Amino acid sequence: MIDLHGIFPPLPTSFNKDESLSTEHIRKNIETLNRYGLSGYLILGSNGELVMLSHEEKIRVMEAAREAIPREKLMLAGTGCESTRETILLSREAARAGADAVMVLNPFYYKGQMSQAALVSHYHTVADASAVPVIIYNMPANTGLDMTAADISAIADHPNIIGLKDSGGNLAKMAGIIHNTKKGFQVLAGSAGFLLPALTIGAVGGILALANIAPQNCLDIYHSFVEGKMDRAQKLQQEIVSLNAAVTRNWGVPALKAAMDHLGMYGGPCRRPLQPISEEVKKKLLQLL
Amino acid sequence: MIDLHGIFPPLPTSFNKDESLSTEHIRKNIETLNRYGLSGYLILGSNGELVMLSHEEKIRVMEAAREAIPREKLMLAGTGCESTRETILLSREAARAGADAVMVLNPFYYKGQMSQAALVSHYHTVADASAVPVIIYNMPANTGLDMTAADISAIADHPNIIGLKDSGGNLAKMAGIIHNTKKGFQVLAGSAGFLLPALTIGAVGGILALANIAPQNCLDIYHSFVEGKMDRAQKLQQEIVSLNAAVTRNWGVPALKAAMDHLGMYGGPCRRPLQPISEEVKKKLLQLL
Amino acid sequence: MIDLHGIFPPLPTSFNKDESLSTEHIRKNIETLNRYGLSGYLILGSNGELVMLSHEEKIRVMEAAREAIPREKLMLAGTGCESTRETILLSREAARAGADAVMVLNPFYYKGQMSQAALVSHYHTVADASAVPVIIYNMPANTGLDMTAADISAIADHPNIIGLKDSGGNLAKMAGIIHNTKKGFQVLAGSAGFLLPALTIGAVGGILALANIAPQNCLDIYHSFVEGKMDRAQKLQQEIVSLNAAVTRNWGVPALKAAMDHLGMYGGPCRRPLQPISEEVKKKLLQLL
Amino acid sequence: MIDLHGIFPPLPTSFNKDESLSTEHIRKNIETLNRYGLSGYLILGSNGELVMLSHEEKIRVMEAAREAIPREKLMLAGTGCESTRETILLSREAARAGADAVMVLNPFYYKGQMSQAALVSHYHTVADASAVPVIIYNMPANTGLDMTAADISAIADHPNIIGLKDSGGNLAKMAGIIHNTKKGFQVLAGSAGFLLPALTIGAVGGILALANIAPQNCLDIYHSFVEGKMDRAQKLQQEIVSLNAAVTRNWGVPALKAAMDHLGMYGGPCRRPLQPISEEVKKKLLQLL
Repeated sequence: MIDLHGIFPPLPTSFNKDESLSTEHIRKNIETLNRYGLSGYLILGSNGELVMLSHEEKIRVMEAAREAIPREKLMLAGTGCESTRETILLSREAARAGADAVMVLNPFYYKGQMSQAALVSHYHTVADASAVPVIIYNMPANTGLDMTAADISAIADHPNIIGLKDSGGNLAKMAGIIHNTKKGFQVLAGSAGFLLPALTIGAVGGILALANIAPQNCLDIYHSFVEGKMDRAQKLQQEIVSLNAAVTRNWGVPALKAAMDHLGMYGGPCRRPLQPISEEVKKKLLQLL
Repeated sequence: MIDLHGIFPPLPTSFNKDESLSTEHIRKNIETLNRYGLSGYLILGSNGELVMLSHEEKIRVMEAAREAIPREKLMLAGTGCESTRETILLSREAARAGADAVMVLNPFYYKGQMSQAALVSHYHTVADASAVPVIIYNMPANTGLDMTAADISAIADHPNIIGLKDSGGNLAKMAGIIHNTKKGFQVLAGSAGFLLPALTIGAVGGILALANIAPQNCLDIYHSFVEGKMDRAQKLQQEIVSLNAAVTRNWGVPALKAAMDHLGMYGGPCRRPLQPISEEVKKKLLQLL
Repeated sequence: MIDLHGIFPPLPTSFNKDESLSTEHIRKNIETLNRYGLSGYLILGSNGELVMLSHEEKIRVMEAAREAIPREKLMLAGTGCESTRETILLSREAARAGADAVMVLNPFYYKGQMSQAALVSHYHTVADASAVPVIIYNMPANTGLDMTAADISAIADHPNIIGLKDSGGNLAKMAGIIHNTKKGFQVLAGSAGFLLPALTIGAVGGILALANIAPQNCLDIYHSFVEGKMDRAQKLQQEIVSLNAAVTRNWGVPALKAAMDHLGMYGGPCRRPLQPISEEVKKKLLQLL
Repeated sequence: MIDLHGIFPPLPTSFNKDESLSTEHIRKNIETLNRYGLSGYLILGSNGELVMLSHEEKIRVMEAAREAIPREKLMLAGTGCESTRETILLSREAARAGADAVMVLNPFYYKGQMSQAALVSHYHTVADASAVPVIIYNMPANTGLDMTAADISAIADHPNIIGLKDSGGNLAKMAGIIHNTKKGFQVLAGSAGFLLPALTIGAVGGILALANIAPQNCLDIYHSFVEGKMDRAQKLQQEIVSLNAAVTRNWGVPALKAAMDHLGMYGGPCRRPLQPISEEVKKKLLQLL
């Protein structure tokens, strides 16, 4: 059984100036972050520009990351594709490359046809075929498809599906999912913006873009909560709200990478059409840092 | 300064079988709820079918409610209308009828024209004219217009605007609002579904449909949090999720009123087009109760 | 049987500088427009700021308008309210005041409860009680509730419901509604932006904000289509696109009223929170005029 | 200059029972359709399950299709990917394989970052690099991102961008785009549901799922319009509304493929998670056929 408690950064994928993949920078970023008490890493999530990479590139990222991630930390790999068959293929590659679990974004292009039956069938077929456990990934701001609590509860009813990353931020829904799924189903907050609220209703941790650039702050919120220091937790949670919004909802992956560059890690460019942040935005971002 | 800490039920408006207003039943329901340690009442909110009542009926509801609400409990009155002028008129009537504060839903019909400037102008004009403090009311599920954190922070910058009821349930946004508004600005959770998460990021309480039918459960969550009993708070929060969804998002005011009828209070009919819940839904509702 | 063929302006409601109602200016505007070959007028629609007016003011508008509208032109009156009972009351007042038909916007505040059953019950109850025929009004941009083709077809199945004003602009849906409703059900385009397309799939005319300030252009499109002059119709339709967008989607009723002022009619202020257009917008608007 | 007048079917991609690609069936379907007066074919559109195919499979589809499509008919190939670089690569492969133009769906996963500047930069970079002309593809129901008229007009301002397929169905917007883009910019209706309305405001034709199973009906609407037979065009347009909805919005590609199977073409399975239509839906579909 994989234990998902704690904080995981969703690692950006590093590209050289010509947008070619740089596995070297991925490894170095992980080595930098290994110093912190993080529970592991998510690679190939939304911050990992999953939709910008070819099948082969994804495999290279998984292999490179695993080299740098010590055994005692988890490697979660995003393997969700639009087709069930490609999701299965990539999940198998992830297991082969050493992923401890795969995180599967729901298919969403054919929104009108993604009934609960279709979603359950997709996830259960993948979970049947996957050598490692499956985590559901709900990301409505990007997919335009917000899986309902009922959808997720139905999907969760499979022995190889162990958790959920929910980036929607609807806490009442999240509480309902925790209440209505099997004991041991592990829910992770998808943004530092609602980490503490999620923990209070039973989430076990978070996969947080902010943890790439402010890992200790995220860990402090988590540990303050676990140790019952609610006043401190609340204060810390309040403090990270603006910076977190800057590198997620407001200015996205380009801002996250710019912040990494500023902090001595490797950010580098995003693949286009993602644009570098403007000088004006950069100024605001550095102030928040 | 009005202190909004604690739990407030948004009282349904009672109608006789022919849909005429019954101020008598409103008073009796308040008397029943007076036994609990509630901080006060919201009348003429979404659960009060505010959009179904004439100007005159709203005044009658305010007068009748104040008779039944003891002085040491707050009466908050919903006075938001589409026009600024009617909102002012009704807010003045509310003060005259003894409301301690007015809660003002944003105008929303002309969505495309509701720029931040228009919203700020509306709220500040109302706040200038109102003899009692103003609470902002954001209810995107009904209005189809979700005021942004920036909108709300700009509106909050007025001495007579003291707080916010946010029914949207986006906790990251709520944390940002608390962080970015003046000290002493009081945020209230708009649904029991996210009461505990909201408290953990600095909300002072909640205006909760569920508090009409399960006031003690809501109070227990609140007090457990205040006393630092987080395990108990989390357990209690989990327990009310399904019942809360039943009388809010899922089946709405008709279900809330049916539950009140079942518990010996007066629920009675809603004004049409709101339909009574079906026998099948009723069965499920009673199970949850 | 009421014949809805042709072009109808949805008349703005005139207010004095202090936002009080000016029935005199309403009458004068109608007299100006009576010179054109319009089929009639809609009063108390979205351009008539229906949600800004009290019950009594609405009656005054209906009475004043009827005085100015000659018998051979139709007076359609918007009477949709959130409650079924008030919609019935106002529809009866409309008939008393001389309306030839009432146009009923769907209730929308309790979106989550507006099932097809609830909507059909609302409209059929109103249609049973109304002394004059009922026209359905679908306005998703303002209500946030887009009635489906199936909803509208079910509602249309009542002898006293004779037509639909659809402001949604989904032409495939509109064609489906025309195809699936009873023979003689009359569909009106809700915006000049899609007048010609709507006519080509069987709409009988339009209720067009633009017809307040450019009635002849709207009539020319209509007559060109009727006479089979498609090249001319297409050219005319293209020409009005930008001005139409200016006084509807983009800048709304304030722009429409500013345009009326410019053209020698009475525009005057909107009721707040609607704001007057800025000088910059005004400049662009006058260019389009 | 490529002339886009007329009707184009967006060809489904054929799969064997095990979901492997069947270029043979693609060729045969094209041969069947070559008998009609269609202007050409779109391959690798939404009906072609573009998001379900690997880069290599897309190239195989393009090569196979070109073999079957006679020189005098156009081959349009969908090459839009999330990254600019992959879109360029695939557009070059398309030109090599004999496509006459490429149709580029906008990137949409990072919705929050897809400013007009980002979209213009993406399209212009692709158009600069593409050996064949580029057609913009707006498909909001699937992407969740509805490019505005202003976005599209700005994108269109490039010599190698010659047209637009708009599947949104907002005719006022479409008319505005035609009015505000360069002379000769060619707009195609994205659904038979609004073919005639689109033609009347200046669209030059359509890329229509329905043209796979009812090519003559689509051609008849087109030619009736061109010949000025508006009554006949209207009647034909009305007749296809229900069948068109069945194979698009309602039941999607699985229904389209089932209809092709029924008509003696090759439909075959979709790639999962798309599910085969139920027996009940099949019965309704066959009735419509």
